[in-house]
Amino acid sequence: MKRLLITGAAGGLGSVMRTRLAHLADTLRLSDMSDMGEAAANEEIVQCDLGDAQAVEALVEGCDGIVHFGGKSTEGPWSVINNANIQGVMNLYEAARKHGMPRILFASSNHAIGFYPQSQVIDNTVYPRPDGLYGISKVFGEAVANAYHDKFGQETAIVRIGSSFPEPANHRMLSTWLSYDDFVRMIERIFDVPKLGCPIIYGASANSASFWDNSKVDWLGWRPQDNSEQFRAQIDATTPKPAPDAADVLYQGGLFCTDGIHSED
Amino acid sequence: MKRLLITGAAGGLGSVMRTRLAHLADTLRLSDMSDMGEAAANEEIVQCDLGDAQAVEALVEGCDGIVHFGGKSTEGPWSVINNANIQGVMNLYEAARKHGMPRILFASSNHAIGFYPQSQVIDNTVYPRPDGLYGISKVFGEAVANAYHDKFGQETAIVRIGSSFPEPANHRMLSTWLSYDDFVRMIERIFDVPKLGCPIIYGASANSASFWDNSKVDWLGWRPQDNSEQFRAQIDATTPKPAPDAADVLYQGGLFCTDGIHSED
Amino acid sequence: MKRLLITGAAGGLGSVMRTRLAHLADTLRLSDMSDMGEAAANEEIVQCDLGDAQAVEALVEGCDGIVHFGGKSTEGPWSVINNANIQGVMNLYEAARKHGMPRILFASSNHAIGFYPQSQVIDNTVYPRPDGLYGISKVFGEAVANAYHDKFGQETAIVRIGSSFPEPANHRMLSTWLSYDDFVRMIERIFDVPKLGCPIIYGASANSASFWDNSKVDWLGWRPQDNSEQFRAQIDATTPKPAPDAADVLYQGGLFCTDGIHSED
Amino acid sequence: MKRLLITGAAGGLGSVMRTRLAHLADTLRLSDMSDMGEAAANEEIVQCDLGDAQAVEALVEGCDGIVHFGGKSTEGPWSVINNANIQGVMNLYEAARKHGMPRILFASSNHAIGFYPQSQVIDNTVYPRPDGLYGISKVFGEAVANAYHDKFGQETAIVRIGSSFPEPANHRMLSTWLSYDDFVRMIERIFDVPKLGCPIIYGASANSASFWDNSKVDWLGWRPQDNSEQFRAQIDATTPKPAPDAADVLYQGGLFCTDGIHSED
Amino acid sequence: MKRLLITGAAGGLGSVMRTRLAHLADTLRLSDMSDMGEAAANEEIVQCDLGDAQAVEALVEGCDGIVHFGGKSTEGPWSVINNANIQGVMNLYEAARKHGMPRILFASSNHAIGFYPQSQVIDNTVYPRPDGLYGISKVFGEAVANAYHDKFGQETAIVRIGSSFPEPANHRMLSTWLSYDDFVRMIERIFDVPKLGCPIIYGASANSASFWDNSKVDWLGWRPQDNSEQFRAQIDATTPKPAPDAADVLYQGGLFCTDGIHSED
Amino acid sequence: MKRLLITGAAGGLGSVMRTRLAHLADTLRLSDMSDMGEAAANEEIVQCDLGDAQAVEALVEGCDGIVHFGGKSTEGPWSVINNANIQGVMNLYEAARKHGMPRILFASSNHAIGFYPQSQVIDNTVYPRPDGLYGISKVFGEAVANAYHDKFGQETAIVRIGSSFPEPANHRMLSTWLSYDDFVRMIERIFDVPKLGCPIIYGASANSASFWDNSKVDWLGWRPQDNSEQFRAQIDATTPKPAPDAADVLYQGGLFCTDGIHSED
Repeated sequence: MKRLLITGAAGGLGSVMRTRLAHLADTLRLSDMSDMGEAAANEEIVQCDLGDAQAVEALVEGCDGIVHFGGKSTEGPWSVINNANIQGVMNLYEAARKHGMPRILFASSNHAIGFYPQSQVIDNTVYPRPDGLYGISKVFGEAVANAYHDKFGQETAIVRIGSSFPEPANHRMLSTWLSYDDFVRMIERIFDVPKLGCPIIYGASANSASFWDNSKVDWLGWRPQDNSEQFRAQIDATTPKPAPDAADVLYQGGLFCTDGIHSED
Repeated sequence: MKRLLITGAAGGLGSVMRTRLAHLADTLRLSDMSDMGEAAANEEIVQCDLGDAQAVEALVEGCDGIVHFGGKSTEGPWSVINNANIQGVMNLYEAARKHGMPRILFASSNHAIGFYPQSQVIDNTVYPRPDGLYGISKVFGEAVANAYHDKFGQETAIVRIGSSFPEPANHRMLSTWLSYDDFVRMIERIFDVPKLGCPIIYGASANSASFWDNSKVDWLGWRPQDNSEQFRAQIDATTPKPAPDAADVLYQGGLFCTDGIHSED
Repeated sequence: MKRLLITGAAGGLGSVMRTRLAHLADTLRLSDMSDMGEAAANEEIVQCDLGDAQAVEALVEGCDGIVHFGGKSTEGPWSVINNANIQGVMNLYEAARKHGMPRILFASSNHAIGFYPQSQVIDNTVYPRPDGLYGISKVFGEAVANAYHDKFGQETAIVRIGSSFPEPANHRMLSTWLSYDDFVRMIERIFDVPKLGCPIIYGASANSASFWDNSKVDWLGWRPQDNSEQFRAQIDATTPKPAPDAADVLYQGGLFCTDGIHSED
Repeated sequence: MKRLLITGAAGGLGSVMRTRLAHLADTLRLSDMSDMGEAAANEEIVQCDLGDAQAVEALVEGCDGIVHFGGKSTEGPWSVINNANIQGVMNLYEAARKHGMPRILFASSNHAIGFYPQSQVIDNTVYPRPDGLYGISKVFGEAVANAYHDKFGQETAIVRIGSSFPEPANHRMLSTWLSYDDFVRMIERIFDVPKLGCPIIYGASANSASFWDNSKVDWLGWRPQDNSEQFRAQIDATTPKPAPDAADVLYQGGLFCTDGIHSED
Repeated sequence: MKRLLITGAAGGLGSVMRTRLAHLADTLRLSDMSDMGEAAANEEIVQCDLGDAQAVEALVEGCDGIVHFGGKSTEGPWSVINNANIQGVMNLYEAARKHGMPRILFASSNHAIGFYPQSQVIDNTVYPRPDGLYGISKVFGEAVANAYHDKFGQETAIVRIGSSFPEPANHRMLSTWLSYDDFVRMIERIFDVPKLGCPIIYGASANSASFWDNSKVDWLGWRPQDNSEQFRAQIDATTPKPAPDAADVLYQGGLFCTDGIHSED
Repeated sequence: MKRLLITGAAGGLGSVMRTRLAHLADTLRLSDMSDMGEAAANEEIVQCDLGDAQAVEALVEGCDGIVHFGGKSTEGPWSVINNANIQGVMNLYEAARKHGMPRILFASSNHAIGFYPQSQVIDNTVYPRPDGLYGISKVFGEAVANAYHDKFGQETAIVRIGSSFPEPANHRMLSTWLSYDDFVRMIERIFDVPKLGCPIIYGASANSASFWDNSKVDWLGWRPQDNSEQFRAQIDATTPKPAPDAADVLYQGGLFCTDGIHSED
């Protein structure tokens, strides 16, 4: 690719991928509302509120690929979710539609299906069960991606990210952990495959205790290679064992499922 | 019920159901942005913009059932859809959560799954395939209904309405028509059944040419009794036969599937 | 048939079927532990404890069909269930194996799958979910029937009877009611079909509010013709509406699901 | 339609449909190897060996619809099956491809799936299980229809005909009977529906004892109205009850399943 | 755990696990009807007939985990199966219900599904197909485990053990072998996972020729690491190749499927 | 085996397997229409046109295993396909039926299901979707294999071969490649397993980007060990990236899907 846009580049995942995805394009265009520091030689830095349609259109123009980490990435008040994840996604897809429909990786979330029980292994055909406003906004984003694909041919990889951190940090993440290496390998496949369509991919490593089944996207050629199991002893030693009726044990979305509606403040 | 709220009461379906549902409650509370005429003896009339959270909260308070026809009921510019069907639904469910969680009938739409082909019979477990901004907003509404059910116990009947008119008006409606009588019978069951949960129901009569399978909600006890087939000869005689590659023939959502994004005006 | 055995002939269903099934055989052999009154011209009356292997063998000999209503037909102490429904069924199948393997109708029960929720429509392939000792004994009986079919060729119709009474008596029975007429028609098919095998049949009329799907045994040619819906108004008028969290509303097995273990007495 | 071709017009079904389908087109073109008698006013009669590619091309030219009953319609020596049902079908589809691709009804047969047991209800997605050379040739024909649809857009209704006679004649036909009225109604729908595609339809009336499930083609709008059950008493009275291990009882294809390979003669 | 009960501790598996599971609890309580030798420092030895309710209650009291290998572990006369596997299981679950509901591993068996053909890969949702009295008793035990879970919250891991021996001993065991190491790893997960519920787990190593699919319990985090394939050459060299119609080749339950009913003696 | 017949022994795969399968039998009988060179010590060479029934019968007699690579192995004119793959297969199975029914490996092809999209992972239960005359002939061959199994007990492994070459040669083959080593291992299992039946096996290595799911034949014990992924960089470097709407990218059958009907010449 000539220019790959990474939104949310100042965030946790975004700042990691800023370095890890540099090989995918001549230029990385990075955007966020927050400060992203200095631009490297191959980088363009654009501060941008995703809720601002005109700014997003300028941001997208000239890119031939988009990794969309931007927006609110956890539960929050409706006004924040609404601006960043509802209006923001609509702005992004409208901008893409007007500017050559670059392939998009949409960072959806396990919270789009968070109310499925951890004892049920689900694949990518299940009906959504969001676990809060954040999850609802991700179902919305998936719906936009699908409609723009069916209607206009816009390609999107919908990645329902589990827990992408250097290491799993608690019991539930032994099921949901996505290593950076595995995520990079997935992104390489997403932008390399001749035809992508609009598949849903669970973003998790090859964890023994997984409750997600990616077999319907085997054709993509992505095979995660890391396994959270190597961290189990460490987690057992450093974190208390959760109660059997804790949300973190019952539901795929974990504690989000018992979180209330966040008040506007 | 003591008080049943019907939103969108000045609309096509709303004005019909205003008379047809009177027996379900002591009082009908009717709301719309448009004029609803005089209140009958058993009616309360409340003009209300669904995008106004405070107004919606006042509207919902004191009701023990809600038939939510309100909002934009066809494709439109994003700002209109957003206010009425995104913000409006969020306002409705927040109001319900704060005021005793009255049972809700949420008027979803076939356009939430409009891109499925007419040659595929689908049931209520399929992943959404919305056919435009309107359909996307209905997927959003379904997600809100589901999350509020899983999280707070709010009950909703999600009804994916086909084409509810006195008679089917074209070839596609021979598959999607929902007679008023069948719809009334369905609504009676929805508010009568001791436990509702959050089921998805396809809103169509017992049409021979149906592409929707309601067998997974048989437990509800609703069996439609009308069949659009009685109108086939009339439609053959009065409307031109559609081309085999017309959107109205290919997709369950019909012409919505080839409609573009509506510009703001 | 020359001789049809009806066990449990003094019980509720047994005494009804004693008259309703007379046309199926030259002679009806009737058995029960209780008094069965006078034998009619075409009847043989045999008092018999199903837990007595020798008595059961004598009972079965010479019969070319068996309708097995006998045993404990509701929850009870383990010793009673064990004698009548565990030992009793084993005795019956051993007797049948030794005496020509007459075709058997085994009266299983909805309580073999009683913990499935009423909001889930199930067919005859689901794994059992018994709701108590009685239900467990019915799963046992189904297992015996299946093993004797796979192993020895013994044919059995496993009928998971819902609620077979003159009329449905409460809300749940609107889903589970089996009219006597429909049951007789089913039994006629069971003993008429050239090859029966060992199918599972849900014993319910064509109730609108059914949560059972018999489509996998359509080949049997039984189509129930009654519908409990005709009794809904009467039940609404005469019984209190159950609470949404009542076991009678939540589970297919109804109140059995919250019944405890019965003490021996 | 202007001109509807019926092949096999001198055969059992063909001669019936010659009169029953006259209303579907201005002209019926009838073909067979055998004598078809006098042409009526609206008829064209063409004697033709389906194994003769040039003759078939001439036969098809100028038709805008084809009901393909022609070919060997029962088990036979390979050379006969091969000429009529392998070479014949290839000739027909090549002719159609070259002459405007008129919509085709391909008379497939239950013998394409004849080895499925009668105790298994199958729908139209199952893998074929032909019961002899005739059944194999029907699988071949279905494959041709599918490939010509996927590749060239040729539309075909693949009808797996059960037993289309005035009345069912034995026990198995109580499951497989297709009344002429129901067949005519099906054919009307096949040539009326704006887009047909290449669906598989089981050709059977609404028989209580059916082992075929047409629900996946509900969208076609065909609902059979006859039921063989009205003939059960008559068949019980006039035909011996088959043994439980007779092929006519075990397999959907009945006696074809135990028929050997017919020798060339 | 403080105290883990292993029943059947004198049996084949029991005596192996007596040493292999010592690390799971401060104290192992061991029970059997047979002699279990001397108690080690961390062991308590209790001779006990599972058919004796009072003895079982005393046995269970004070344990916070149970590995239930006890009972008759192969085909036998009904009186023996009945006492050990019917009455014995009922006693165990009643004792557990009265004494804090310690988590249970119930050693079910492949003979609960023994009549499924080896050419069919099955998962844990299939309906049981027991292959004899022993298999029937295991279906009974699974039913008890399920009912006590649904009704009282009792947690059980139902393990359908294949063939747990040091090495596979014949051709069929190449499919069903469960290495001791893999079994120990499974048991560790069963007693470690915060919430267990009542899952069914096929007890087999990662054998290439498996006919069991454990993917629905992936969430448990157990991944077997041994593979019987390493023993194939040895088995080919030392055992005769079975005939293609041998029960050991046809059925998952092997020779049990052709074993008759054992006489009482 | 004493004598293993390999048909098509002069072809690409045949000539490779001529050396790779020598260990499976005392004698290899090799046949082809083309020159096969000198016979080695353990070889018998028979030139034979598969369309000649008598010659095929002589060829098959005395063999206790058949690897059927013979026939036309790519798209061609109907007369060629018909002779080699229709008449040829019929001749082979008739010969086998008359001469002891030796176990057969039938080289079917991915072109029997070539019109399934590459983005759909399919297993071996799907209905065929052939992509041309060659694919149609393979569906025919599969039908013959199935009918001869159901009817006469003839065992066949239907192998839908992907792309069996030393290395994958283009992008699509990264999904469909079958290494020679994996193929040999599969063939060893096919002729070693005590009971084969008539399974369908996708012939592909353990490629990351596979769109075929062989899990339903896990019981066979074949686990491919090679993975085309090792060749991805090489293919990326040496072949142009295909367009997203190229048949080679859209369909499992690749370019066959857009190939026309080959004219007779």
